[in-house]
Amino acid sequence: MIHTIRYGRLFDDFVPGAIYAHPWEVTVDEGMLAFFAASFQDANPTYASRRAARELGLRDRPVHPLLLLNLGLSFSVHDVSEQAIAHLAYMDVRFPNACYPGDTVVAASRVIGTRPVSTGDKGVVHVRTEVSNQDGEVVCSFERKVLVRVGNVSGRAAALPQSPVDERPAAPMPRAPASLLGDLSPPRRAAFPTFWDDFEVGDVYAHEAGRTVSEAEHMQLTTLFRNSHPMHVDERYCQKSSFAKTRVVFGGLVLAWVLSLSSRDTAGNAVWDLGLDDGAHPSGVLAGDTLYAASSVVAKEERGKDAGIVVLRVIGLKNTPARVLLERGADLFTPELGKTAGRVPEKAVEITRTLLVRRRT
Amino acid sequence: MIHTIRYGRLFDDFVPGAIYAHPWEVTVDEGMLAFFAASFQDANPTYASRRAARELGLRDRPVHPLLLLNLGLSFSVHDVSEQAIAHLAYMDVRFPNACYPGDTVVAASRVIGTRPVSTGDKGVVHVRTEVSNQDGEVVCSFERKVLVRVGNVSGRAAALPQSPVDERPAAPMPRAPASLLGDLSPPRRAAFPTFWDDFEVGDVYAHEAGRTVSEAEHMQLTTLFRNSHPMHVDERYCQKSSFAKTRVVFGGLVLAWVLSLSSRDTAGNAVWDLGLDDGAHPSGVLAGDTLYAASSVVAKEERGKDAGIVVLRVIGLKNTPARVLLERGADLFTPELGKTAGRVPEKAVEITRTLLVRRRT
Amino acid sequence: MIHTIRYGRLFDDFVPGAIYAHPWEVTVDEGMLAFFAASFQDANPTYASRRAARELGLRDRPVHPLLLLNLGLSFSVHDVSEQAIAHLAYMDVRFPNACYPGDTVVAASRVIGTRPVSTGDKGVVHVRTEVSNQDGEVVCSFERKVLVRVGNVSGRAAALPQSPVDERPAAPMPRAPASLLGDLSPPRRAAFPTFWDDFEVGDVYAHEAGRTVSEAEHMQLTTLFRNSHPMHVDERYCQKSSFAKTRVVFGGLVLAWVLSLSSRDTAGNAVWDLGLDDGAHPSGVLAGDTLYAASSVVAKEERGKDAGIVVLRVIGLKNTPARVLLERGADLFTPELGKTAGRVPEKAVEITRTLLVRRRT
Repeated sequence: MIHTIRYGRLFDDFVPGAIYAHPWEVTVDEGMLAFFAASFQDANPTYASRRAARELGLRDRPVHPLLLLNLGLSFSVHDVSEQAIAHLAYMDVRFPNACYPGDTVVAASRVIGTRPVSTGDKGVVHVRTEVSNQDGEVVCSFERKVLVRVGNVSGRAAALPQSPVDERPAAPMPRAPASLLGDLSPPRRAAFPTFWDDFEVGDVYAHEAGRTVSEAEHMQLTTLFRNSHPMHVDERYCQKSSFAKTRVVFGGLVLAWVLSLSSRDTAGNAVWDLGLDDGAHPSGVLAGDTLYAASSVVAKEERGKDAGIVVLRVIGLKNTPARVLLERGADLFTPELGKTAGRVPEKAVEITRTLLVRRRT
Repeated sequence: MIHTIRYGRLFDDFVPGAIYAHPWEVTVDEGMLAFFAASFQDANPTYASRRAARELGLRDRPVHPLLLLNLGLSFSVHDVSEQAIAHLAYMDVRFPNACYPGDTVVAASRVIGTRPVSTGDKGVVHVRTEVSNQDGEVVCSFERKVLVRVGNVSGRAAALPQSPVDERPAAPMPRAPASLLGDLSPPRRAAFPTFWDDFEVGDVYAHEAGRTVSEAEHMQLTTLFRNSHPMHVDERYCQKSSFAKTRVVFGGLVLAWVLSLSSRDTAGNAVWDLGLDDGAHPSGVLAGDTLYAASSVVAKEERGKDAGIVVLRVIGLKNTPARVLLERGADLFTPELGKTAGRVPEKAVEITRTLLVRRRT
Repeated sequence: MIHTIRYGRLFDDFVPGAIYAHPWEVTVDEGMLAFFAASFQDANPTYASRRAARELGLRDRPVHPLLLLNLGLSFSVHDVSEQAIAHLAYMDVRFPNACYPGDTVVAASRVIGTRPVSTGDKGVVHVRTEVSNQDGEVVCSFERKVLVRVGNVSGRAAALPQSPVDERPAAPMPRAPASLLGDLSPPRRAAFPTFWDDFEVGDVYAHEAGRTVSEAEHMQLTTLFRNSHPMHVDERYCQKSSFAKTRVVFGGLVLAWVLSLSSRDTAGNAVWDLGLDDGAHPSGVLAGDTLYAASSVVAKEERGKDAGIVVLRVIGLKNTPARVLLERGADLFTPELGKTAGRVPEKAVEITRTLLVRRRT
């Protein structure tokens, strides 16, 4: 007998309320942190420096939150999106506890809802995914929506265990480890330029930094994070089945690139990522594309004597710096979905980011 | 005086019974593990999760056996195959003890035999290589055969120490750490689909997963493992001296890719690699090729109440999924060497893999 | 308001005597070591093996000195060279203390001098950079000269702190950790070919090893080391603003490649890098170039009963092995700057390297 085992689900394979415990179980290590830092040059010292992290009351340098989000997205591909047509949205992403190198993480996704699309051949699946460490602490939780075709996956392993169904609403997650929400010891480092005091609502940052994406690094990260979708790593599959007719960069990486490109200008004195929300990928990114970023200050709020909250709308652009588009009068910060005019075809990602940032001392 | 130091050996440089202690001495670390995981998406939890490994009685997450084989092959290039024309065969590969991140490994190779080829200009050298940790425990042992030209390497360092000669047959190596061969604690993770119970002798798995090989990652792995053959990393050398007129992917990596491509379907509930044997590379792989895999169940055997042994013949294919070739009636599992008809030009590797796999609980 | 924050300095932004504390603060980890080893196949056992390092009295395997130099160069880009036209020279590079994985490093640069160029539109800035660990120990110090345009950077963050000015000459740094300068325990490994005894002043080594540089790996290393110059990673910027009209490989990486290509022939029994000096990059390197190396023995000196000092002039070549150029009678070892004839256009780096090397036992 010839077996061809397939993974992921089509619309009719999803059961509202079901919880899919993803089979990947991986110890996050310093090598994984280095792979992340080798693609995403992030300025937030909490995630880069053991000394800075310990001064904040953490026991070690924590794993970068965007790495955890990438792991959660990737682990869930096996059960949620390996057959998906598109990733539609990121919602309510939180990092309630620090994850440290050496921790072993797993992830599980609960089906929050399913909704057929009016054309009848597709549907939208809404899931909540939680990434947990070996002690059961949630280190990353997020919701996302994916678009899948109707039907059932043929060849899906019969061995699939029955999934528990839990219809209770999830308890709200904290947005940061507790030690970061009180008084902060002053930093000992030299400073990147922007503190909480420097942000003004309505200000726009046209970040200068750009980064060209290479074929090897995006495949390495995709493989390392256990993303099993062939769209990102199997060229022959893509020539037949990808909308781009070639490998497409995993969206979680695009998001990490764009946030890192903005980080020297906005997150160099940040303490923690309090969350991401309202995120989408209006277009795909290919190896060879150069990514740029822009940020708009949406809100700010005092938070104790040492830090404050800044809410930024961050967008990522392909092959054109933000300044060039702003000079042309492009409407960068309105969400692409729902725009009736003024679409920005260069936009590859858009998301709302909430940061805890130090005040100027 | 101008010195040009060369390494490796030609046929007349090999002394039967001689033991060549390879000079590389390397501490295996979490970074090396991450490089391995960033190219080879392997589903076996023993190698990926510290928690899963500890539940099996190991003191930490062990280094992936295929990483150890790659290190052994690579360390031995300096003395055995840096001048070789071809790697002909893998035989009796075993992983008797776990190696952990932080261990420092060395390797030595003993010349088991040498045999001139009838054409008179080449010969086959048969060696046994052992990789050992800082306590002298063997963590990987294997035999291989290489094809080399007759003669002696000119410019070989005069400093070459006298090699001890040991003609005694090697004691048989165990096939796994002892703690894995008794009762096993039940897994706590969600399950990949196939358990020991699911394999039937004669079944064929046409694995869907494919992976395109990138130039950078194969060179990084080759360099990291200390493989010193210019065939893999020196484009100018290859334009003159490689059969492909360009860099060729190191065979140990091809093997790791193909086994990883099969792993979600066959090794997701595996506990340990009990060995590899009868392996060969019928053709070379270049950057840009996409690899696929197929497995045939050759034998299975009970082994205690918790696990059993499965013997698979695994093949790797270039740029064509196994299902496509099986539908055409291709003879995938007969070894290419010695075939009189029905050769499969897409085949890049073939090997027999023995796995210890959990039973369905 | 639209902000475009720029970094680096133009000639008139530099204040002689000022000390710029660079804001990057990074924990060096095993992942970073693996990235280094995955591009630079270095034979010195001190940097590769925890066992070898401990036998030398170090507490762990030290971070490779060239990795520290790359970090120092990269951290300083933010304040010193992000607007620079060219890196002109490396001088007096020293590694006075071992840095270990887990250490957190910062860097600061002092402006030693500034000198306008006669054309009036550019100037040369001479800085001394020190990389320190969390205990304030200097693990790498070096001087360099960069060429920058006159003027001030517009858009530079107003938040720039006042820099302290210190005009005192720096105290001379030791050249190695103290434990390496006394008696050495004998090595337990098999040997690479060359010991201190084997080097003769005037000898030339035409190294056979070559390495092709890949796009992904040079960008990963540049990003990982926090080098923020767009010349290395932003293809669109380079099409407009790079002399090569494409991304150029960061010079610190070129240096590391070339020294590693020479290492099996000259540094396989080395104990420590005592320093680098008189270094320059006569031409740039692009992805796809293949690097080669040659070394000339400039001096040697006894140093105790176990080791001695060897001074090598090492050069790096693009796309042509040293042997080919030597056979043509090329003048490889005269510095390119100041040559009136016989320029070697293939030369990409030249530097003087001082090694502590074991004596033959």
